Amino acid sequence: MDVLAEATRLKAEGKPVISMAVGQPAHPAPTAARSAASRALETGKLGYTDALGTKSLRQAIAERYSSEYGVDLDPRRVAVTTGSSAGFNLAFLQLFNPGDLVVITRPGYPAYRNILSALGLQVIEIAVGEETGHTLTPAAIEAAEREAGARISGVLIASPANPTGAVHSRQAIAELDAWCAARGVAFISDEIYHGLTWTGEEATALSVSDNAVVINSFSKYFCMTGWRIGWMVLPDDLVRPVECLAQSLYISAPELSQIAAEAALEGTAEMERVREGYRQNRSLLAERLPALGLPFAAPMDGAFYAWVDVSRHTNDSMAFARQMLSNIHVAATPGRDFDPVDGARFMRFSYAGSHDDMKIALDRIEAWIAP
Amino acid sequence: MDVLAEATRLKAEGKPVISMAVGQPAHPAPTAARSAASRALETGKLGYTDALGTKSLRQAIAERYSSEYGVDLDPRRVAVTTGSSAGFNLAFLQLFNPGDLVVITRPGYPAYRNILSALGLQVIEIAVGEETGHTLTPAAIEAAEREAGARISGVLIASPANPTGAVHSRQAIAELDAWCAARGVAFISDEIYHGLTWTGEEATALSVSDNAVVINSFSKYFCMTGWRIGWMVLPDDLVRPVECLAQSLYISAPELSQIAAEAALEGTAEMERVREGYRQNRSLLAERLPALGLPFAAPMDGAFYAWVDVSRHTNDSMAFARQMLSNIHVAATPGRDFDPVDGARFMRFSYAGSHDDMKIALDRIEAWIAP
Repeated sequence: MDVLAEATRLKAEGKPVISMAVGQPAHPAPTAARSAASRALETGKLGYTDALGTKSLRQAIAERYSSEYGVDLDPRRVAVTTGSSAGFNLAFLQLFNPGDLVVITRPGYPAYRNILSALGLQVIEIAVGEETGHTLTPAAIEAAEREAGARISGVLIASPANPTGAVHSRQAIAELDAWCAARGVAFISDEIYHGLTWTGEEATALSVSDNAVVINSFSKYFCMTGWRIGWMVLPDDLVRPVECLAQSLYISAPELSQIAAEAALEGTAEMERVREGYRQNRSLLAERLPALGLPFAAPMDGAFYAWVDVSRHTNDSMAFARQMLSNIHVAATPGRDFDPVDGARFMRFSYAGSHDDMKIALDRIEAWIAP
Repeated sequence: MDVLAEATRLKAEGKPVISMAVGQPAHPAPTAARSAASRALETGKLGYTDALGTKSLRQAIAERYSSEYGVDLDPRRVAVTTGSSAGFNLAFLQLFNPGDLVVITRPGYPAYRNILSALGLQVIEIAVGEETGHTLTPAAIEAAEREAGARISGVLIASPANPTGAVHSRQAIAELDAWCAARGVAFISDEIYHGLTWTGEEATALSVSDNAVVINSFSKYFCMTGWRIGWMVLPDDLVRPVECLAQSLYISAPELSQIAAEAALEGTAEMERVREGYRQNRSLLAERLPALGLPFAAPMDGAFYAWVDVSRHTNDSMAFARQMLSNIHVAATPGRDFDPVDGARFMRFSYAGSHDDMKIALDRIEAWIAP
């Protein structure tokens, strides 16, 4: 957060900052989405929608599960949310009680930890590394449960994961789901980076389970971060309670964003071209970062992040990030945000920006650390 | 919620439903706001903003306090939120811990109770009635505290209030603020219906206090419900912690809505005409409802609601609301939503709709209950 604020400040001063710090596509929302929003502004008034979203958007999202994954999904199980942020908050509030233990991975998306803590839940961070492909396993959860000396109430995975890019196979998801189901443990699958898997299969938890709570968003693949629009897929028995919670906590997601999101689902041709740009960025980073003494600490199988080991250059990635921003105006995120224990060795570089920006950033880094 | 769902269902069937059930203006957002949004869609991409909102919107909101209330406000104390819903959630999370006692009025906006409960807080509902002009007083809070046998952690008022329309005078707000400040009790002032006060002075808590947490929104006066855009004004020491919470829980409010909201602040001439429409609706209801045996249970001093005593026609306002919707397709909200104890005697009629709709609805009600 502090690196971001400093980057914003430098930009406002006119400095040529390149941000590889935010998980935000350089591309705007699909043309179809922006056109639909423009038409809605001209023709209609905007208001609250049903708490779980417009019927047509829920229907369209359900249909996407059929076309993309071959999963038959009742649209009533789809809850449209104000970004995936609202999905996490609603899932945590509905599934857990204060004091409950919830498992996440380390490294992982910092908002998980922050939201869970804000709600009075206990976070169990399980370190994931090379030996499991940076994914979570029932064995690791059982070990953590023994160490905690208490029963775990929930397990949350992200696949592809932020910041590692790690992808859980369908088999790995099925094993976690079965383990959770057998013990009455809630299973939450964050699939916000779906559509951005580079190697291997992209499996949704819905293909192995009707018990998982799936969270997704239009922010990443559909380039709609600023629109704040996402969705959950809920087990049948959670639909009504989440509807009541959502009504009180959010009323509804922004209607204009719902209209745009529905149109975005028709804009995949454009998004596939954007995706190709990430693939090129990824190749560029894969070629150049390790050569600069910045090897990858995880495989970049999905999402648009490189999780980089910076220990050859620093033992404090936070200071390194500050210096890099100050000296060469390249912003990237210090590892501590994602890993409070070992984060000083790592940094996350987002490659969701333009290819030209990535090249310039790499040139600057090269000139800076390998003079 | 059930009456709303049924109204939506009947509308979808093509029934000529008139909704007096939702606190939602019939008018769209100011033309200036919609134009600004259209331009933003054409020219720029939308993304995350700073967690507390764009600098220019925070500045513009601060300036409004100077021009409208003569209150000098540092823009850094303004937090832009995803509707007032986010403001309540952030305030409650930041100010209270699970188990804390928080005072609200009965009747009152149901989301207060629901959000507080969802966060594990204890709700103390204090009945307000004619003897205090439907407002809250330190004496009533002290009595409630004695009855609860425990210290109260927070007091929340709304002025103008939903559903009663009651307005707290500057003096009443100052007394509550002083009482809270002397005891280290958090004071939250919901000012979402500001701009819609019909009789008496409209005082912001900021005019008497730097300690109050003020919550407001563009939804009501500025007719921007579906845009999900509001704000908080925070005491200095809460700005940074709320920023961290907001970053995790919301990332930011929708950028397009922030752009539109800033332009809306220039659209007050248009909104003053809308306001005149509410005033006419209010006169119409004041003239006709009591004549139908539906007297007002509160004074309609502000907001766009009539809180009506229906006990001459029913002892179950929920059943009455269902019958009214089913028989004459007029939707209004049963009192139980706002008052779990005495709500069966009351209903809330929103007069934020068009004047023609209000007339038709009253004609239907007259034909139905006074045949």
